[in-house]
Amino acid sequence: MAGVCERESNEMSEIDRDQYLIEREPYYRPVQNEVAMYRAAYEARMPVMLKGPTGCGKTRFVEYMAWTLGKPLITVACNEDMTASDLVGRFLLDINGTKWQDGPLTVAARIGAICYLDEVVEARQDTTVVIHPLTDHRRNLPLEKKGELVQAHPDFQIVISYNPGYQSLMKDLKQSTKQRFGALDFDYPTAEIEAEIVAHEGGVDKATAEKLVQIAHRSRNLKGHGLDEGMSTRLLVYAAQLISKGVDPQSAARMALVCPLTDDPDMRDTLDAAVNTYF
Amino acid sequence: MAGVCERESNEMSEIDRDQYLIEREPYYRPVQNEVAMYRAAYEARMPVMLKGPTGCGKTRFVEYMAWTLGKPLITVACNEDMTASDLVGRFLLDINGTKWQDGPLTVAARIGAICYLDEVVEARQDTTVVIHPLTDHRRNLPLEKKGELVQAHPDFQIVISYNPGYQSLMKDLKQSTKQRFGALDFDYPTAEIEAEIVAHEGGVDKATAEKLVQIAHRSRNLKGHGLDEGMSTRLLVYAAQLISKGVDPQSAARMALVCPLTDDPDMRDTLDAAVNTYF
Amino acid sequence: MAGVCERESNEMSEIDRDQYLIEREPYYRPVQNEVAMYRAAYEARMPVMLKGPTGCGKTRFVEYMAWTLGKPLITVACNEDMTASDLVGRFLLDINGTKWQDGPLTVAARIGAICYLDEVVEARQDTTVVIHPLTDHRRNLPLEKKGELVQAHPDFQIVISYNPGYQSLMKDLKQSTKQRFGALDFDYPTAEIEAEIVAHEGGVDKATAEKLVQIAHRSRNLKGHGLDEGMSTRLLVYAAQLISKGVDPQSAARMALVCPLTDDPDMRDTLDAAVNTYF
Amino acid sequence: MAGVCERESNEMSEIDRDQYLIEREPYYRPVQNEVAMYRAAYEARMPVMLKGPTGCGKTRFVEYMAWTLGKPLITVACNEDMTASDLVGRFLLDINGTKWQDGPLTVAARIGAICYLDEVVEARQDTTVVIHPLTDHRRNLPLEKKGELVQAHPDFQIVISYNPGYQSLMKDLKQSTKQRFGALDFDYPTAEIEAEIVAHEGGVDKATAEKLVQIAHRSRNLKGHGLDEGMSTRLLVYAAQLISKGVDPQSAARMALVCPLTDDPDMRDTLDAAVNTYF
Amino acid sequence: MAGVCERESNEMSEIDRDQYLIEREPYYRPVQNEVAMYRAAYEARMPVMLKGPTGCGKTRFVEYMAWTLGKPLITVACNEDMTASDLVGRFLLDINGTKWQDGPLTVAARIGAICYLDEVVEARQDTTVVIHPLTDHRRNLPLEKKGELVQAHPDFQIVISYNPGYQSLMKDLKQSTKQRFGALDFDYPTAEIEAEIVAHEGGVDKATAEKLVQIAHRSRNLKGHGLDEGMSTRLLVYAAQLISKGVDPQSAARMALVCPLTDDPDMRDTLDAAVNTYF
Amino acid sequence: MAGVCERESNEMSEIDRDQYLIEREPYYRPVQNEVAMYRAAYEARMPVMLKGPTGCGKTRFVEYMAWTLGKPLITVACNEDMTASDLVGRFLLDINGTKWQDGPLTVAARIGAICYLDEVVEARQDTTVVIHPLTDHRRNLPLEKKGELVQAHPDFQIVISYNPGYQSLMKDLKQSTKQRFGALDFDYPTAEIEAEIVAHEGGVDKATAEKLVQIAHRSRNLKGHGLDEGMSTRLLVYAAQLISKGVDPQSAARMALVCPLTDDPDMRDTLDAAVNTYF
Repeated sequence: MAGVCERESNEMSEIDRDQYLIEREPYYRPVQNEVAMYRAAYEARMPVMLKGPTGCGKTRFVEYMAWTLGKPLITVACNEDMTASDLVGRFLLDINGTKWQDGPLTVAARIGAICYLDEVVEARQDTTVVIHPLTDHRRNLPLEKKGELVQAHPDFQIVISYNPGYQSLMKDLKQSTKQRFGALDFDYPTAEIEAEIVAHEGGVDKATAEKLVQIAHRSRNLKGHGLDEGMSTRLLVYAAQLISKGVDPQSAARMALVCPLTDDPDMRDTLDAAVNTYF
Repeated sequence: MAGVCERESNEMSEIDRDQYLIEREPYYRPVQNEVAMYRAAYEARMPVMLKGPTGCGKTRFVEYMAWTLGKPLITVACNEDMTASDLVGRFLLDINGTKWQDGPLTVAARIGAICYLDEVVEARQDTTVVIHPLTDHRRNLPLEKKGELVQAHPDFQIVISYNPGYQSLMKDLKQSTKQRFGALDFDYPTAEIEAEIVAHEGGVDKATAEKLVQIAHRSRNLKGHGLDEGMSTRLLVYAAQLISKGVDPQSAARMALVCPLTDDPDMRDTLDAAVNTYF
Repeated sequence: MAGVCERESNEMSEIDRDQYLIEREPYYRPVQNEVAMYRAAYEARMPVMLKGPTGCGKTRFVEYMAWTLGKPLITVACNEDMTASDLVGRFLLDINGTKWQDGPLTVAARIGAICYLDEVVEARQDTTVVIHPLTDHRRNLPLEKKGELVQAHPDFQIVISYNPGYQSLMKDLKQSTKQRFGALDFDYPTAEIEAEIVAHEGGVDKATAEKLVQIAHRSRNLKGHGLDEGMSTRLLVYAAQLISKGVDPQSAARMALVCPLTDDPDMRDTLDAAVNTYF
Repeated sequence: MAGVCERESNEMSEIDRDQYLIEREPYYRPVQNEVAMYRAAYEARMPVMLKGPTGCGKTRFVEYMAWTLGKPLITVACNEDMTASDLVGRFLLDINGTKWQDGPLTVAARIGAICYLDEVVEARQDTTVVIHPLTDHRRNLPLEKKGELVQAHPDFQIVISYNPGYQSLMKDLKQSTKQRFGALDFDYPTAEIEAEIVAHEGGVDKATAEKLVQIAHRSRNLKGHGLDEGMSTRLLVYAAQLISKGVDPQSAARMALVCPLTDDPDMRDTLDAAVNTYF
Repeated sequence: MAGVCERESNEMSEIDRDQYLIEREPYYRPVQNEVAMYRAAYEARMPVMLKGPTGCGKTRFVEYMAWTLGKPLITVACNEDMTASDLVGRFLLDINGTKWQDGPLTVAARIGAICYLDEVVEARQDTTVVIHPLTDHRRNLPLEKKGELVQAHPDFQIVISYNPGYQSLMKDLKQSTKQRFGALDFDYPTAEIEAEIVAHEGGVDKATAEKLVQIAHRSRNLKGHGLDEGMSTRLLVYAAQLISKGVDPQSAARMALVCPLTDDPDMRDTLDAAVNTYF
Repeated sequence: MAGVCERESNEMSEIDRDQYLIEREPYYRPVQNEVAMYRAAYEARMPVMLKGPTGCGKTRFVEYMAWTLGKPLITVACNEDMTASDLVGRFLLDINGTKWQDGPLTVAARIGAICYLDEVVEARQDTTVVIHPLTDHRRNLPLEKKGELVQAHPDFQIVISYNPGYQSLMKDLKQSTKQRFGALDFDYPTAEIEAEIVAHEGGVDKATAEKLVQIAHRSRNLKGHGLDEGMSTRLLVYAAQLISKGVDPQSAARMALVCPLTDDPDMRDTLDAAVNTYF
């Protein structure tokens, strides 16, 4: 009709559940009974905590389990500046006023995804407290700012990761949070399995991969004796990739294994010596 | 009429009181005279403080009482980043300007709900001070930003929970807050009642449940001697659920009871030994 | 005229002075000459500071004086997250742009209310400084963000409360604030008056009330010797209310007097013993 | 014309210079040559710093000088939560977008007022730095957020107050700020002048006023020996006002002189004794 | 056309380059080769750091050089609450949405001004880091929030001032910032030149000016021995101005030289004695 | 059609990839095998960390590599006030509501640029955590506030710089961040190469350049013995430029080499002596 100001409401688009499905089988080499244990926990929709050092495969494991179970996966890298709103959602300004936008945790609860909170101990307390009602018999998420109580989809499960080595007095999960999770321990794989991974991911032969793993073992023995962490599997794959691009092994090991780890001259000499033993 | 820009006011929808009613009777096993005491306190609309360790059933008890009394229940998980506005409400931007949105405490005061502030000691002082006029003879809530004085519904009652073990110098309720509440002590149930709960909730037989409770008792004796908290009833239920999914008891206990509790190798050995004694 | 977009200004509604009047005479038992002293101070419109421990009746006294003088009363519970804007007012977004909304202090200054800032020492400095021009010969309040200088209504008076026991190095009023107030000391009432209050408010007979007061006196003697505060009159009323609902006196005293006060086992034994002496 | 959406711009109203003029001669008793010195400083438009203890008459002096010179006066009570924008101005949201609103300092610079920043040392550094270009040969104020350079009106002058007793390591003016001001020292008036003031302002006879001044002198000797500050002239006026309302002198002195000053029992005894000596 | 809602875009007005030109030659008395050195640095568009104590003429020097070179000058008084956005610019809300507003640094880069950041060490790190790309071969300024890379005008130069005496452990420029500037040392002028300045600016005869300079020299020798800073040239000019208004020299010196500098009684005696030696 | 309010959406303009291409070959003198190593790392799209002192050429190296590889380069100067939103993007208010604006990291991921985060250790943890999913097999960037998962363009690579000398206990990269990068060590070039650079960039002859380099070497030996850093190549270029403008070498060295580095009188004497040795 003439003269009437029309406005179409711009509705929130449907959440695209499929974008969170893992398309291809992630490369994952099981180490113990972790696949079976996780499966049982998922059947009970028990919240799960993955414990272990940096770069040992926790993220990959969750991706593998999401693929195996055929469930969507929503990953959130936690950090100390993340607020509860970053997880739960917030109001955004719109032509029709404010519009609610679900955060990743709310999306996961609605569509029945596995919600993976990576390094949750980095987050502030409001993050960890916000997940409490999703981790007990209630399985709901109160959107207090919106006045809505989201009942979690039956497929929804919450998974968090946790590096015990970082755990300081200042930053630790509260017992009332910890005791809401079953926990699985992770560690670097055995030498044989790790060499297999490095060869597969880094594009080098088994012999080279085994040498790299040997170097890593030496560095891991130095943890707490001058090094904060040993070389992760990821760094070994980096070194292998450089070698597969034609870089000589010593330069590759220096760039991918030694330099990132430490700036201490003595420690570097020790690590260089380890490299020279094998290459 | 032609040429006139029309706008319909989008009014605040009526608060849906029914969504806060507990639909089914929550599973709760009374331990002492807490049901009668709470009922008397509710009759006087006395604010109540529930004291006790993590996972011992405080939240479940409030749900049970709300169901018994037939009153709506609004639960807020308190945290140190929660502001007074998160409880009381705030102005949101709207096409017609700003619109007030009640927070959960205000909603509870209006509809006559039991408002349960979980772990209130985690909140900042403005949260705890904001409840003061609702906890004395005034029974009102000044919405200072809106310039409204909400008189609480006759059914309204405030309940807070409090874990004395956490109580530190930095974080404690002020005396002027504490002395506004009658208090009920909670603790883990007796072995018999706890086994009943674990069997019922975890889907295992009585014998298995009793073993799990025995393990928990051992861990609770270690509180303050290497453990911050003993195993909660919730963790026992987790272990039982894993067992009922076919996981062997030792693996189930490791995932649900030992790993979540501690990363200390000695403590883990002690707890593993306790598990092996029974399974 | 056709085709013109019309908008009606939504003007700030008149402040409803009557909503701040105390409707019924509050129950208040004078202890000393505080009513006469306050009346003289009010006649000079002298700012008044009420000093005394938690739950001894300061808030009730202000309500009583406001009722006696027939003036509106606006109470603000101060806290460390309260900003000057929370007192003075702020701009809110409106369809016609931003609109100023008076805070409670400004409302009180305009309508000639008694403005009671409860526990003012909890507030940040900007709160306490903001009241300065209202507490000397100027009797005005500059709304700097609005560019308006509010001249206080002739009836306006400012009253603050202050608990000397809390006064720490970090949190104390500045001398330039303190020296703007006449001060009245408050303390718990005498045993006889307190028993009268407990009987009247708690619905129990005089004998029971006297016993409760005796228990309170014992706890107050423990202040500084294991207790931060003794039992307030309010807690005694709570215990009386439970008894009047049919709860046995020992259970009532435990819930209302002992449990809220302390979690220390020895202190609890001492207080329990005091209860058992009288009931 | 039909169909056209019209909007009238709501322009910023002219600043009302007259509202900042002091209407009646403020009661001020000169102590030394401060009136002549200030007048010479104003002629050179030299920024002036008034130094002295709480309640000794600095604010009254500025009002008196503004009245004498016939210039508008804009007073800002500084505090540690005040931002540069609170002084300079900010953008407010308007129907036509954002609209700049001058802060009190900018208003003063435009209309040629005396701008009095009370207790400037309480403000954050950005406040004190913001006044720099107004306090040297430039005499301008860059509104950086607005992109405007305000050239100060020829009548504009800046005055700040400063209590040397508060001056701590954490809170002091920077030398680059201090060295932009001529300074005048203030102190409590002589006994004779102070008694005159107390009699005049408090409505009591000279004899009573002199007694009150004697009590104040005793308290001022205790400064640094158990008292943070002695009794200010303002408190003496309060006591006098209570006496003139018919309160007995001892009660008046207790309410207006002793109670506001200290909660220390010994100190209170000392002050009570001083009161009893004279009344 | 009838019925269409028209809106004219309110475009950002052209930046008025002329308003930043220094109109009259500033009074500046060169001390060493600083004019030639600055001119060479400007020819290389080298960023320049002016080092020296408070009130010794750094700001005046930059004004003089800008006037000599005929370039616009934009001065920013840095402070610890200033954000990168205060320098670079921000989005403001407009009827057509958000509109970018250049900050003073961006304006200077666009129009080819000398941008003078006064007391840059007071600013937070984001301020100092923001100038990095403008101070090396890139000579650009990324407006990250706007997604624009501003290439500096060929005339643009950055100048900062820095008081080495303030330089504390907490507040110092990072080496990666320092090493982007050529530096010129400033100090108080020689006695002869300073007397010339004081006579010229303060309107007194040479003899009086020389006496004031002698007093200043005495105070500067006390720096570090009870005084944080000696008397600046600016304070000498203040004293001269008071004298030229007819104030007796001792009173003028007390108000302009002694009182602003210190509240320590001994120090004041020493300074008063210095004054009395000459007047 | 008459009377209808029309509004055109102001769409986000296409990102201009070309503006981020380096137009001319940057002047870069390779020192070791860093060009080949970087090239291999880029082929594997391995994230790279450049380690080295201030002003040794890290930024120039990245520009050179971007030019060599023909890829766009987006540089972000990190600082401790930078938020994750500054990197990733944010919602801006628009006439049609809020509109998402990509941050520099998101732009780089979309267009396949090399994203160079300069001095990443200065940033807060949320910045460093935000790059995690871009630095492992996922190579994606979740825009959590927008609910979009950006898959990085195949050309995208992340590069960070890091000054080991700054690395303090408070500010260091987390191991879980470090172990996502291959690392290249940088240092000042050899004397011969550095003289070549200084001559080329500063416009002086080889002999003068060599003298400047000798002075720099003396200062670098003082690092940790009174100097925080030695003179950077950049400062040498500054001195050379002043000399080429006709300034005498001693004055040039004082302004460009000595004054910026230190205010310590002894250290300045030492450096002046070094200058006088060569000029």
